[in-house]
Amino acid sequence: MAQHFAVVARDGSTRARAAELVTAHGTVQTPAFMPVGTAASVKGLAPWELGRLGPQMVLCNTYHLSLRPGVDAIEGLGGLHRFMGWDGPILTDSGGFQVFSLADRRKLTEEGVTFRSHLDGSELRLTPESCVETQRRLGVDVAMALDVCPALPATRDELERAVATTGRWAARCRAALPPGGPTYLFGIVQGGLDLELRRRSAEELQAIGFEGYALGGFSVGEAPPLMWDAVSACAPMLPEDRPRYLMGVGTVVDIVHAVAAGVDLFDCVIPTRNARNGLLHTSRGPVVLKQARWKLDPGPPDPACECPTCRTCSMAYMRHLYVAGEAAVVVLATVHNLHFYLALMREVRSAIMTGRFAQLRARLAAPGTAGDEET
Amino acid sequence: MAQHFAVVARDGSTRARAAELVTAHGTVQTPAFMPVGTAASVKGLAPWELGRLGPQMVLCNTYHLSLRPGVDAIEGLGGLHRFMGWDGPILTDSGGFQVFSLADRRKLTEEGVTFRSHLDGSELRLTPESCVETQRRLGVDVAMALDVCPALPATRDELERAVATTGRWAARCRAALPPGGPTYLFGIVQGGLDLELRRRSAEELQAIGFEGYALGGFSVGEAPPLMWDAVSACAPMLPEDRPRYLMGVGTVVDIVHAVAAGVDLFDCVIPTRNARNGLLHTSRGPVVLKQARWKLDPGPPDPACECPTCRTCSMAYMRHLYVAGEAAVVVLATVHNLHFYLALMREVRSAIMTGRFAQLRARLAAPGTAGDEET
Repeated sequence: MAQHFAVVARDGSTRARAAELVTAHGTVQTPAFMPVGTAASVKGLAPWELGRLGPQMVLCNTYHLSLRPGVDAIEGLGGLHRFMGWDGPILTDSGGFQVFSLADRRKLTEEGVTFRSHLDGSELRLTPESCVETQRRLGVDVAMALDVCPALPATRDELERAVATTGRWAARCRAALPPGGPTYLFGIVQGGLDLELRRRSAEELQAIGFEGYALGGFSVGEAPPLMWDAVSACAPMLPEDRPRYLMGVGTVVDIVHAVAAGVDLFDCVIPTRNARNGLLHTSRGPVVLKQARWKLDPGPPDPACECPTCRTCSMAYMRHLYVAGEAAVVVLATVHNLHFYLALMREVRSAIMTGRFAQLRARLAAPGTAGDEET
Repeated sequence: MAQHFAVVARDGSTRARAAELVTAHGTVQTPAFMPVGTAASVKGLAPWELGRLGPQMVLCNTYHLSLRPGVDAIEGLGGLHRFMGWDGPILTDSGGFQVFSLADRRKLTEEGVTFRSHLDGSELRLTPESCVETQRRLGVDVAMALDVCPALPATRDELERAVATTGRWAARCRAALPPGGPTYLFGIVQGGLDLELRRRSAEELQAIGFEGYALGGFSVGEAPPLMWDAVSACAPMLPEDRPRYLMGVGTVVDIVHAVAAGVDLFDCVIPTRNARNGLLHTSRGPVVLKQARWKLDPGPPDPACECPTCRTCSMAYMRHLYVAGEAAVVVLATVHNLHFYLALMREVRSAIMTGRFAQLRARLAAPGTAGDEET
């Protein structure tokens, strides 16, 4: 068992596990959901509001931060934690996903990828070495290796080449950020829905050796059941004694199925983006703020919720703020939705530790359950 | 001395006074600045954030709330305090100022004013009786009488007719909301910069009798020194034993001069609107967030400030959030600017009570001082 990661409980009937990932900025109790703070800010939340929500770890986007305000600025200001006023664990993505989504504005070579900034059109280059160096300089707790995310739909040949390049780049990332420092490095398994390629990718990465392993290239348009099956097949390909991270996923149902497969870490924009679009995740299912049915409702958004929003605001008030275009509704809805996700993860962890995960999974994965909506 | 209002200290060299206004939702320690929560929300602030700032009283706009969500809705939900999650004192304006600014969409008669909603164009009518009844049903602590705000520039004849109608409407407002209930009623003195008309208006209102008196029709485009002189001349026309409220004013300098004239209450959108536009009020003067000079500045917005924003965020971070269009900057800047205004009012009150107001006024009214900017 690695020193930085310890499984503390296992579910009896699934591969679900509760674990602890020890970082330089605190211990991440898993399964954990990471709120997305793309540009060093979880949209709408003051740093103290994020602190009060108490996520185990926060995700920031290397691509966005590299372009603005730039890694020199953040490093010079004492690193990303101090910059954004968040003293807990931070994971950054590699920037690869954003660059590869720039489609016609990027060019891939063995050395790396050249692209044009979405801000000013300037030409920039991302290599495995520069990618991890940037994340190391940001001072994050977990850096992600640079991977190749093929545009979909992709042929098997394209997927195979992506896996091969991802493997070679992963080795270069590891060489640029050897084990032992305060910043962990996670490798990213690619291969789409092709399990043979996924296995090859997972084996290549394990041969290199990382502090954790991620499943990339999921939740990119495939039907959820296909993803659930693939994740169930792929998670066991990753070592038992390292954290497993399913990138960019997902809905409550997605998360519960992935936890059952043995995944430990998640990030997704769903709770925060839905909040901005006026959709609340609640124990009674999704709630759309703009609906006229809430106009006179004196009850809280979620009677079962103990977040500051539900303790303070009626649905009538929430709807009023949304309809009137009042900025406070973004704060209130974001606080609620993140609290909902974080409380869910605490409940999942507790269920694993007390042998109740199977029941919880059955309840949460039932059709029409909370959070299974995306705006 | 009225039971609901008590002067607790007077400055020796000016008419400044420190007082207490006792309301059904707490005691307002004056001089006090009321943050503006137009649509039952101080823009960008969750109710608990407003509560933490601890304003003495909050202003809401009857016009906006009447149109959306409507007084029936708010009354049915338990009143405005419960609706907006603010348990402290609330003052509402009469809606007259908004209606009269609708220029070509309103029609004035002796009975009241007819206007078209800015939301859906429907025709609505506002009378002195409906105006105070609406505010009473909202459950506010201080209601404002319906006044006539003439469009500027106005002839003396127009001003005179506005004063006369304001007086008759004030009597009808008082009859509709007699003394003794939980909702106080303030009369509004009009008359523009014409001191004879101001005196006539003040005398008419005092003959009717209100729990407080406001100076309306200032800060509507006149040069600040003209306003300061007129306010200095008008404040003493109002009774010593009632609170005096200068509506819609203003900058720090405006407020300090008006306090010296004996004014107790203020409201203004300056700190909140400036926050949204990226201008901070600080002890070192106005700070414009977008300026490149802040890009690498590790210091807080205001080294002398103890607000949550200044304790948490660097100028570099504030500028980054502003430039990146991150919603959190509105929260952070609003918290800071309101804290600045509220701390200023506490300092003003303390100075009055300890005989240091003259020095404080001289310092704050010096050219280029903090807060003397508007975006």
